[in-house]
Amino acid sequence: MFFASDNTSPVPQQVLDALTEANKGYASPYGADALMDEVRAEIRTQFEAPEAEIYLVATGTAANALSLACLCPPWGTIYCHRNAHVEEDECGAPEFFAGGAKLTLLDGPDAKFDAAALAQALDFTARAGVHNVQKGAVTLTNATEAGAVYTPAEIADIAATAHAADVPVHMDGARFANALVSVGCTPAELTWKAGVDVLSFGGTKNGLMGVEAVILFDPKHAWEFELRRKRGGHLFSKHRYLSAQMAAYLRDGLWRTLAMRANTAAAELSKGILTLPGTSLLHPTRANEVFAAWPRAGHRRAQSAGAQYYLWPMNQTLEGPDDEAVSARLVCSWSTSAADVESFLDTIK
Amino acid sequence: MFFASDNTSPVPQQVLDALTEANKGYASPYGADALMDEVRAEIRTQFEAPEAEIYLVATGTAANALSLACLCPPWGTIYCHRNAHVEEDECGAPEFFAGGAKLTLLDGPDAKFDAAALAQALDFTARAGVHNVQKGAVTLTNATEAGAVYTPAEIADIAATAHAADVPVHMDGARFANALVSVGCTPAELTWKAGVDVLSFGGTKNGLMGVEAVILFDPKHAWEFELRRKRGGHLFSKHRYLSAQMAAYLRDGLWRTLAMRANTAAAELSKGILTLPGTSLLHPTRANEVFAAWPRAGHRRAQSAGAQYYLWPMNQTLEGPDDEAVSARLVCSWSTSAADVESFLDTIK
Amino acid sequence: MFFASDNTSPVPQQVLDALTEANKGYASPYGADALMDEVRAEIRTQFEAPEAEIYLVATGTAANALSLACLCPPWGTIYCHRNAHVEEDECGAPEFFAGGAKLTLLDGPDAKFDAAALAQALDFTARAGVHNVQKGAVTLTNATEAGAVYTPAEIADIAATAHAADVPVHMDGARFANALVSVGCTPAELTWKAGVDVLSFGGTKNGLMGVEAVILFDPKHAWEFELRRKRGGHLFSKHRYLSAQMAAYLRDGLWRTLAMRANTAAAELSKGILTLPGTSLLHPTRANEVFAAWPRAGHRRAQSAGAQYYLWPMNQTLEGPDDEAVSARLVCSWSTSAADVESFLDTIK
Amino acid sequence: MFFASDNTSPVPQQVLDALTEANKGYASPYGADALMDEVRAEIRTQFEAPEAEIYLVATGTAANALSLACLCPPWGTIYCHRNAHVEEDECGAPEFFAGGAKLTLLDGPDAKFDAAALAQALDFTARAGVHNVQKGAVTLTNATEAGAVYTPAEIADIAATAHAADVPVHMDGARFANALVSVGCTPAELTWKAGVDVLSFGGTKNGLMGVEAVILFDPKHAWEFELRRKRGGHLFSKHRYLSAQMAAYLRDGLWRTLAMRANTAAAELSKGILTLPGTSLLHPTRANEVFAAWPRAGHRRAQSAGAQYYLWPMNQTLEGPDDEAVSARLVCSWSTSAADVESFLDTIK
Repeated sequence: MFFASDNTSPVPQQVLDALTEANKGYASPYGADALMDEVRAEIRTQFEAPEAEIYLVATGTAANALSLACLCPPWGTIYCHRNAHVEEDECGAPEFFAGGAKLTLLDGPDAKFDAAALAQALDFTARAGVHNVQKGAVTLTNATEAGAVYTPAEIADIAATAHAADVPVHMDGARFANALVSVGCTPAELTWKAGVDVLSFGGTKNGLMGVEAVILFDPKHAWEFELRRKRGGHLFSKHRYLSAQMAAYLRDGLWRTLAMRANTAAAELSKGILTLPGTSLLHPTRANEVFAAWPRAGHRRAQSAGAQYYLWPMNQTLEGPDDEAVSARLVCSWSTSAADVESFLDTIK
Repeated sequence: MFFASDNTSPVPQQVLDALTEANKGYASPYGADALMDEVRAEIRTQFEAPEAEIYLVATGTAANALSLACLCPPWGTIYCHRNAHVEEDECGAPEFFAGGAKLTLLDGPDAKFDAAALAQALDFTARAGVHNVQKGAVTLTNATEAGAVYTPAEIADIAATAHAADVPVHMDGARFANALVSVGCTPAELTWKAGVDVLSFGGTKNGLMGVEAVILFDPKHAWEFELRRKRGGHLFSKHRYLSAQMAAYLRDGLWRTLAMRANTAAAELSKGILTLPGTSLLHPTRANEVFAAWPRAGHRRAQSAGAQYYLWPMNQTLEGPDDEAVSARLVCSWSTSAADVESFLDTIK
Repeated sequence: MFFASDNTSPVPQQVLDALTEANKGYASPYGADALMDEVRAEIRTQFEAPEAEIYLVATGTAANALSLACLCPPWGTIYCHRNAHVEEDECGAPEFFAGGAKLTLLDGPDAKFDAAALAQALDFTARAGVHNVQKGAVTLTNATEAGAVYTPAEIADIAATAHAADVPVHMDGARFANALVSVGCTPAELTWKAGVDVLSFGGTKNGLMGVEAVILFDPKHAWEFELRRKRGGHLFSKHRYLSAQMAAYLRDGLWRTLAMRANTAAAELSKGILTLPGTSLLHPTRANEVFAAWPRAGHRRAQSAGAQYYLWPMNQTLEGPDDEAVSARLVCSWSTSAADVESFLDTIK
Repeated sequence: MFFASDNTSPVPQQVLDALTEANKGYASPYGADALMDEVRAEIRTQFEAPEAEIYLVATGTAANALSLACLCPPWGTIYCHRNAHVEEDECGAPEFFAGGAKLTLLDGPDAKFDAAALAQALDFTARAGVHNVQKGAVTLTNATEAGAVYTPAEIADIAATAHAADVPVHMDGARFANALVSVGCTPAELTWKAGVDVLSFGGTKNGLMGVEAVILFDPKHAWEFELRRKRGGHLFSKHRYLSAQMAAYLRDGLWRTLAMRANTAAAELSKGILTLPGTSLLHPTRANEVFAAWPRAGHRRAQSAGAQYYLWPMNQTLEGPDDEAVSARLVCSWSTSAADVESFLDTIK
């Protein structure tokens, strides 16, 4: 019953096998390995983006910060949701990589902002000429930090607003796979066809040891990205071990299969919780995260049974009346089994 | 016959096994995994440094740049050899992570500088008060970029000079294992006992997929290091896969065994080349790199036989008289076999 | 009728005279001039702060950004009001000088935040450990961007909250003189006695050509400030011309006299406007700025008579019904005469 | 007998008068003042550069660092002479403003480097692809830190080499006026006609209180420069007082007149010293600085007579035999009179 985070899971056997296979003999370093060629070709095909440039890094923070640094000048601001990972969980990495840029925080339910909120913020930025930071970049997270998803239409609205102001669009896709199988469209529809310029394509939370691809749909920043990656200490010499994992992830749609498992588990969990009395959801369950409230007594039973998850938000507590609803975050991953879900539901009943 | 670099080698079976073993079940993220406890304890023991704080990152550039950023303020300068990796091969990572610090380049044979060269540079820096950058940090590379090594006595001289000027000492140990088995002392003697404050303890070039430990012998910068690591995108969520590799590396002295193999191969290679007519060494062979010159005809035969290595320095060329000596760099790794060496020597004969 | 900003005013004759006087003969550069000794002594006396270190720069943005960079690490956040100059009017200077720090925006009426708002933000920052930016520094503006002032008691509350969290306090005193004469206490009471650690002591808006003093009540960051100032290009070689202006400003309380004139003019203006029908104030008039609304017809008359000021906030417009109230910002300075005020009131009547 | 530096001098009466004149009434802030229009027009005319964009800042370090930050990316290197002000006297300002760029130091007599030295450094930079910093910008100082000057032909050689490598050229003209009157060509010939892209046009060392113009001959970086200037705290609100000084400087060729006086004084001084026994020059006297050696006894007499100047380089000392030659730097300014020179020569005789 491990629902603390998708980053506590192991990796599937295919990834271990890929590493073993990749380990044979000598390979060119720094991304010149043959497996990277496969990764590049596969992503271009699966995203219908033959011109895209693709780079691998090992953490989501690196993927986001390096991407945003290419899109936003030091004197720019990055528009994001108030609860975005780039704002709340990266210790200022975007500010650091972008040379002191600012983040402008947008509001909206389920950790989503909409085109109107963006438009208002863009207008505000534009008011003060040289005295103010300038419009830099937009970043949206899909799936969001609240387990919601943006649809292609919503993304298109946001991107159109951004592009009308000459502002590029980045998508933090740490849980892109979960969003994709939830929305049920093509990778292209969820990204460049909707106006996304750069995607952090997550692998780590969805079954890799630590690999993310940055996909530059418009390759004009490719060389700059390579320099920033190197300078940031994010270019791997034995790059084949990143490539191998990402190649395995892309083969036969493994990435979608893994995400489907995680989303299914979350849906079951969410559904199961709602069958109990005194429960509710904080956010609709669209991907692999469940934000739900149930009676405190259930939490007590779950935690003494060894279930791992976070009370959410942070002001929630196990101390208080038994029947009061207390909310929590439960994250499923590719390795969450139906049995895990069932056992958990049993404990909180 | 792969002598281009130690980063083109595979990893030993123990590392793959360790990853498989580590993959079982769920693990706490971000360095709170049990394997990291093992790594920490093992390094403290092997380095006789019970107070040391240890952190893992995935690249040598990250290890160096994050370390130096903790030691040198933005208005400081980092003293290093003109051919140091931090100067020549990190695309300005130290400058970036240290917020715009400077590098002051020292000269000396075999990519080593001595205490006298450092003392002169320290004096020069001090001359201009607020108008000049300030004394920041010293970094020396062991083994050096020219395959040489610093002895404990040499390091102690340098460190004493640095500390007398209130300047901390960092060692870039991307090839620390190779230096250690070459010098034949203890890890403590080659580091903190000689005055090294922070060590980038390399694993990648010596058999890991991409893991380096930063060892802060004086833990006062520990929290700052953690924040810089996170902010630099270098904190791994699924950290156990770094820990597992480093733990395997430390177990039963695997790291020394691997380095011994690489050094032995290099020694054989070096000895073999010198038995041929018209040959010489550019630098003494002390670790796992050979810098040698032999007749051009030998190079032509080697390269048509598929041997991989770099002519060195860059102005060397295969065009010209057959019997003219042309120099090259040959890097051995843990996976270089006696047969590889023999075959190579046969081709250039 | 120039009410656009206090930075459109000339300087008083005393400042010109001081420059002429300072221009005699040769003087040591870079702050080693005798006039700087006078400035230092005078500020220490007037602020009852014998240990304080004092430095001059030429712009308020430099004063603020250099101060904050000394107080907040690159991975920290600076707590300020949402409408603070550091957030809205410095093009990201604090982020730049502090190496990529963040600003956390606090709300509150009249561009003031209180200790409770700060406490809540400090708590929020502390929640996420290494994943989040850290508590860095607090900065409050006195007088505020809305023409309000903080009292010593209010400042003491904020500073106590900050210090309890180990966070230092900076005051942006671009209009410190206006705040001081409004509150009617001593400079010490409005600063260090209330817990302010560093003050940007403004001269420019109150009658100098471009001189601000940074007062470090706790001198521990003094040398760092000097290095940051130099490195920021803010150390003047012919420093005596800054010193001369600041010395003139301090002599015989000129700075208070000038501020009193500006505040008096603003009070008259405010009072005069409120005597007219259909008028109101957006913020109480406590210093030298008036934020008031009056019928659109009055604006039209004023602007055709050549009055200079900004409609405020930016969504106000001259187009629309005559009798609708339209709001504006009117800034008085030391050179605003009673006649100016009267003429203006006549036009909008 | 003040020969310590040109920044210890007062300003000419014209500058004081211009400030007094500029002080009348109200003026638009932030460079929108009418005097700035005059400055812009005048510089465009005098430099025959109708497209140039011109900005004022208050220090030479700001002028250089802001200019270089526009020309060199964070991952680039700036080629300069080893003794350049940007390397030795700005506390790392170029590195700071350029986001962590590097400086590559070139050698050459009289603080000049030539096209061949630059070509070699450019070649070296290009060797390592993504692993190395990239070619960024060239900066040369005219007049140099050794009192020498670059001719248009020398500059054209350097600029052609730079441009062939796609590298822009900046000139640090803190003593541009002194170089110009020494060379005896037009401002255009010494700058854009020879290939200079950006000029730091110094005013401070040559008679202003603290004003430098940055001239962007190619205006493509104009808006970026404005943002960097603001963000660096270098945009003056009461900008008219910078404009007024620069306008006075440009009127009737005052800037050339002042420089001619300084150069003439230096030439007289140099000539006078060489008439004495046991003397020599370290560098030819081409502008307003004299680097000369004369017997120690003369130094002792000069210093007890109150003469102010620096022994040069720093290892020189007043202790030792009377007749041993000891070298020094003597800087003349617009205010150095023939009598000053004569008195000084008398003391050292």
